Amino acid sequence: MPLLNEISFPSDLRKLQKNQLPQVCDELRDFIIEAVALNPGHLGSSLGVVDLTVALHYVFNTPYDKIIWDVGHQAYPHKILTGRKERFYSNRKYGGISGFPKMSESEYDAFGTGHSSTSVSATLGMAVASALQGETDRQHIAVIGDGALTGGMSFEALNHAGVERSNILVIVNDNGIAIDKNVGGLSKYFTQITSSHTYNRLRNHIWNLLGGNSEYHQKSKNYVRRFFAAIKALLFRRSNLFESIGFRYFGPIDGHDVKSLVKTLSDLKDIDGPKVLHIITKKGKGLAQAENDPTLYHAPGMFDSETGEINTTSSSEQTPPRFQDVFGLTLVELAEKNPKIVGVTPAMPTGCSMTFLMERFPNRAFDVGIAEQHAVTFSAGLAVQGLVPFCNIYSSFMQRALDQVMHDVALQNLPVIFCLDRAGLVGEDGATHHGVFDLAQFRCIPNMIIASPLNEVDLRNLMFTAQYTKQPFVIRYPRGKGVTVDWKKNMQTVEIGKGVCLKQGEKTAIVSIGAIGQNALKAAEILENLGQKISVYDMRFLAPLDETLLHEIFKTHERVITLEDGVIEGGLGSAVMEFAVKHNYNIPIQRLGVPRCFVEQGTIEELQAECGFDVDSICKQIR
Amino acid sequence: MPLLNEISFPSDLRKLQKNQLPQVCDELRDFIIEAVALNPGHLGSSLGVVDLTVALHYVFNTPYDKIIWDVGHQAYPHKILTGRKERFYSNRKYGGISGFPKMSESEYDAFGTGHSSTSVSATLGMAVASALQGETDRQHIAVIGDGALTGGMSFEALNHAGVERSNILVIVNDNGIAIDKNVGGLSKYFTQITSSHTYNRLRNHIWNLLGGNSEYHQKSKNYVRRFFAAIKALLFRRSNLFESIGFRYFGPIDGHDVKSLVKTLSDLKDIDGPKVLHIITKKGKGLAQAENDPTLYHAPGMFDSETGEINTTSSSEQTPPRFQDVFGLTLVELAEKNPKIVGVTPAMPTGCSMTFLMERFPNRAFDVGIAEQHAVTFSAGLAVQGLVPFCNIYSSFMQRALDQVMHDVALQNLPVIFCLDRAGLVGEDGATHHGVFDLAQFRCIPNMIIASPLNEVDLRNLMFTAQYTKQPFVIRYPRGKGVTVDWKKNMQTVEIGKGVCLKQGEKTAIVSIGAIGQNALKAAEILENLGQKISVYDMRFLAPLDETLLHEIFKTHERVITLEDGVIEGGLGSAVMEFAVKHNYNIPIQRLGVPRCFVEQGTIEELQAECGFDVDSICKQIR
Repeated sequence: MPLLNEISFPSDLRKLQKNQLPQVCDELRDFIIEAVALNPGHLGSSLGVVDLTVALHYVFNTPYDKIIWDVGHQAYPHKILTGRKERFYSNRKYGGISGFPKMSESEYDAFGTGHSSTSVSATLGMAVASALQGETDRQHIAVIGDGALTGGMSFEALNHAGVERSNILVIVNDNGIAIDKNVGGLSKYFTQITSSHTYNRLRNHIWNLLGGNSEYHQKSKNYVRRFFAAIKALLFRRSNLFESIGFRYFGPIDGHDVKSLVKTLSDLKDIDGPKVLHIITKKGKGLAQAENDPTLYHAPGMFDSETGEINTTSSSEQTPPRFQDVFGLTLVELAEKNPKIVGVTPAMPTGCSMTFLMERFPNRAFDVGIAEQHAVTFSAGLAVQGLVPFCNIYSSFMQRALDQVMHDVALQNLPVIFCLDRAGLVGEDGATHHGVFDLAQFRCIPNMIIASPLNEVDLRNLMFTAQYTKQPFVIRYPRGKGVTVDWKKNMQTVEIGKGVCLKQGEKTAIVSIGAIGQNALKAAEILENLGQKISVYDMRFLAPLDETLLHEIFKTHERVITLEDGVIEGGLGSAVMEFAVKHNYNIPIQRLGVPRCFVEQGTIEELQAECGFDVDSICKQIR
Repeated sequence: MPLLNEISFPSDLRKLQKNQLPQVCDELRDFIIEAVALNPGHLGSSLGVVDLTVALHYVFNTPYDKIIWDVGHQAYPHKILTGRKERFYSNRKYGGISGFPKMSESEYDAFGTGHSSTSVSATLGMAVASALQGETDRQHIAVIGDGALTGGMSFEALNHAGVERSNILVIVNDNGIAIDKNVGGLSKYFTQITSSHTYNRLRNHIWNLLGGNSEYHQKSKNYVRRFFAAIKALLFRRSNLFESIGFRYFGPIDGHDVKSLVKTLSDLKDIDGPKVLHIITKKGKGLAQAENDPTLYHAPGMFDSETGEINTTSSSEQTPPRFQDVFGLTLVELAEKNPKIVGVTPAMPTGCSMTFLMERFPNRAFDVGIAEQHAVTFSAGLAVQGLVPFCNIYSSFMQRALDQVMHDVALQNLPVIFCLDRAGLVGEDGATHHGVFDLAQFRCIPNMIIASPLNEVDLRNLMFTAQYTKQPFVIRYPRGKGVTVDWKKNMQTVEIGKGVCLKQGEKTAIVSIGAIGQNALKAAEILENLGQKISVYDMRFLAPLDETLLHEIFKTHERVITLEDGVIEGGLGSAVMEFAVKHNYNIPIQRLGVPRCFVEQGTIEELQAECGFDVDSICKQIR
C-alpha cells in the first residue's frame, strides 16, 4: 500500500495530487477489509464512505474544520486517516480504540456518535458557536445516512438549521439502507428525487414543436424560455424537501467518484448558509458480497478477506440459541395462535430477529425506521384498538423513547409488551450501546411490570404470559447466546411478581435478576466445591417486587448480595435495600452491578470483570 | 345558547342543519370564554379549533371514528360536545375533568395527549389495527398544530404513515404559533405553501401569447396543455413536503369556515390512504385580545369574559418572584459578564422566561422549536466549541431527551447546564406535566451534577456556580413563586456536593432537597411550637451526595425522614437508604415523596396532601 503507508494524518493526504486519490481509496478499502476480516466490526457502512472520507479530509482543514459522522460506525476510514492506522488492530477491543468516534480519543473526532440521528444537531451547535465567536472561516460538516434521517431529531435539527444562517453542510449519504433496508416515505422520496425526466422530456418536446432553435416564433420562444426557467426554479427549489425548509440542495452526485467529490466539496466551501449535498453510495462498496448482501455484511464477524466468505463454525454439537432467535421464533409461535399479536421494530428486524414474523405474517410486523419514539406510541395506538403489540427495541435505544413509554403507554395502562433486547453489557460496541440504565430508569414508572428471564425457557414463558396480562410489560434480555440447548418447550404462564429460589444454601444469599443469574449459579457451584453453600435467588421481576420471597431471604440469611447487569443506583440492589430498611432488616447488603460510570468496549467477560460481577469477582466478594 | 343547550353529545349535533353550525360555533366560543374566564385554563388553542371540532363531530361517526388531538389542551370544545359540558366548570380541578384528553374519562377521548407531537403515531397505530381487524370503514383523524409538527416524532410517524396504506387523515392546524411564535424552516415553508402565483401568472402569460383559446396553433397548444398539466402535477405532487413522503395533500383551507370544513371533510372520508388537510386558523379566534396576543392568551389565568381584560392583582405589597423570572433575569445578569453564555429553549421562551435573554442578546438565545432532543444535542455542540449553554427544558418534557442527555452530554462530559423548570408537582396541568421522575431517572447518569435550590437566592448561586463547573450540571426548580422578596443579592459560588443544615434540632431529622424543603421548615416550626425540636437539612445536591453531612445526620439523630418533590423509587430517599445500609446505620428511615403512581390534576397543595408531603402530613408523620 504505497500511498496509504505514507499517510498518518490528513496533512499527509493533502500533499498528494488529486489524481492519486482513487488509489488511496483503493488501498484504504483493502486495509479495512483486511483488518475487519480478522478483527470483527462494522464493515459495510465504512466501505461505503471511503471515497467521501478521503475527499473530506483532502478538501477540508481538519481538525479545525469539524466533521461529525452520524452513527459513528461509518468512521473507520476516518479513524485510519487521522492517526489511528497503527492502532486499528485494537478496534473495539478492551483498552483499544473505540468502534465509534470519541472526542477523548482524537481531536479529529469532533463529536461522539453511537446512536443515530444526532449529527445535524451537534454540527449546528458547533457552527452557531463558531459564528458567535467570530470563527467564520470554520467549516462544519455532518455526514448522515438516509436511514438516520428518519430519526425524528434529524428533522428537528434540519428545521432549526434552516433558519440559522450558520455555515453548515449536511452530506446525505444515500444508500437506501440502514442496517436493514430503509423504509418509509422519505426513503421512497430519495429514489424519486432525480426523476425530473418528465420535465426534461416534455421540455424538449415542446421546444422542438416550436421550431427548435430556428428563428420561427422568436418572441413566443423567449417567453417559453422564461417560462421554462421559472418552472425549473420552482421545481428545483420548492420540490425539494430540504429546500422547502431553508437549505440549499446540491446533488445527487456519485459518492464513489472521489475526484468529483473533491471538486464539489471545494465549491461548496465558498457557499454560506445551510447546505445539503446528496451523494449516492453503495454500502459495502469494494467487496462484492457486501455489496450484494449489505444487511449480512453490516457487521459480518470474521470473514476471508480474499473471498469475502464469512467464517462459520462447523461444530456438529448443538449449542444454545441466541436470545434473539428465541424471541423471534417464539413470537411467530405465539402469533400463530393469537391473531391479536403484532410486532414493531425501529429498523432492527434482523438484529432482533423480527424477520421471522415478517416472513410468516408480513402484514403483522412493522419496521418503522429508525424512530424509537414513534415505535412506542404507534404500539400504544395498536394496543388501544385491541391488538397485542410486541415492541422490540434495544435497551440502549429505548432511552430515546422513555417519555412515550411513560405517557403514551404506562399512564394509559396500555398492554404494550416491550422487549428490551441487548440489555446489560453488550461488549464491543461500547459505552453508547450497553443497555445498563433500563432497570434504574424504568423502576419508577407506574403501572409497569418489569421482568427479565434467567434463560431461554423463561423468555418464552414471559412472552407467553405477557400477551394476556393487559398491562405494560417489559421483558429485558441480553445479547447473544443463552444456556439451554433444548429450549423449545411448551410455554407456561409465569406468576407476575414472583421470584424463584434457584439454589438453597445458607448464610449468604445472592439475589439477582435475569440472565446474569447464571454468573451467580456458577459462583455458587465453585464455592460449593470449596465447601461454602450459598443460596441463589432469581427475582425475575423488578416490579412488582416479590416481597414475600425477600422476607424469606432476609429471615434465613446473614448476608445478602444483589446482582444485576445494570447500573447500581436505582436498580434491583436499591430496591432490595429499600425493602430491608423499610422492614428493619439489619443484615449487610452488598450490591454488584455496573457502577455509576460509562463502561467502554471489550468482551462481555472483560467488562463484567472490570465492573466486579464476573464469576470470579462474585466468588471473591463472597469469600 | 339555544343550540348548545340542546347538545350533550355529537349525536345531538348531527341532528342540526348544516347552516345552523356557524351559530353552534359562536355559542361554543362564548361558552368557552365564559368558562375559562372564571376557571383558568388553556384558551387560545381551544378557541382556534372550535369550528374544526364542530365540523369533525358533525361529519365523523365519533366515538367509532377516532379523533386524536395533539397537545390535548386544544380539546375543550371537543370535551364540551362529548358529554362534559355540565362538568366543564371542574376543568383542571382536583377530582374534576382533566385539561387534556383522557381515555379513562370518555370513550370520545381516543388517546391521551399531554406532550406534543404524539398524535400521528397513535392515530397510525389505531388505523393499522383497524385495517388488520377488518374495520375498514373506521376513520382515524389526527389534529396537529404546525408547532407540534416540529417535534421529531411527528416526522417519524409521517415517514412511516406515508408507506402504510391505512386510512388516516392528518389535519395540520396551521396558526403560525405554538405557545410562543413558531420557529424554523417548516414554519417558513407553511407561509410559502400557497405561493404558486409565479406558476399561475406565467401560465396565463404564455397561454395568451399562443393565442389564448383561439384556433391558432392548435397542435402546439395541445402539447402546451399537456406540458402545463405535467408541470402542475409535478409541482403540486412533489413540491409538497407531505406529498413527497407519500401523503395526499389538500388545502390550505380556512379553518374558521365551518360549512366549508364540513364539505371538505365529507369529501375526504371517501378517499383512502394517508391524507393531509392543511387548514389555516387563528389562535384565540373570537376574542380580540387573544387574537392579538396569542402568547399571553395561551393560558391567561382569570380574565373578564366581556372585555377580555386579564385580572391583575393590584396588591401594593411586594411578593416573591416566580422562579422562572429569577432564572430569566439572572441569566441576563450572568450573560452580561460572561460572553460565553448562551441560552437554549425548545419553544418555551415565555414560559421559562428566556425572553429576557432574547431581548437583551437576541443572537445568544435560541428557541429551537418543540424539539427537546435537538435542544440537548445542539447545546452539546455549543459546549464543544467552548460556549456555556443554559438549556432550559421543563422537567417533564426533558423525558423526551434523556438519551441525548446521557450520550451527547454526560458521556462526553460536556459542560451543558440543564435548567429543569417546573420540577415536582405542577398542579392543574396534571399527570403529563408533573416533573416528578427527574431525580430518579437522572441519578444513575454518570458525570452528572444534580442540584436543586431551596429558594431564589440558591437558584442564582447555583446558576452562577454552574457556569464555571465544566461538567454536566442539572438545576431543577419548581413552577411558581418562591419565598424571597429580596432575592437579587450578589451571587456566590456554591460548593459542589455540599448540603446544609437549615435548622438544628434533635432526635428526628428531615433530609430534603430543593424548594420542597420549605414544607420541612414550616413543619419544623409548627412542631417547635408544640414542643418538638427537629432538624431540617437541605442536601441541595442529589449527586454528588454529601456523605459527610449524612454521617453527621445519622450519628446525631434517632430517625430520618427524607422529603422530595418527586417519585420515591430511586430518588433522594433511595440514595439516603443506600447510604445507611452501606454504612450500617440502623435507625428508621421514612421516605416522603410521590408514590409510584400517576398523580392527576389539582392545586399543588391538594396534590401534596394526596401524596402525603404537605406541611400537615409531614407533621403527622413525625408525631
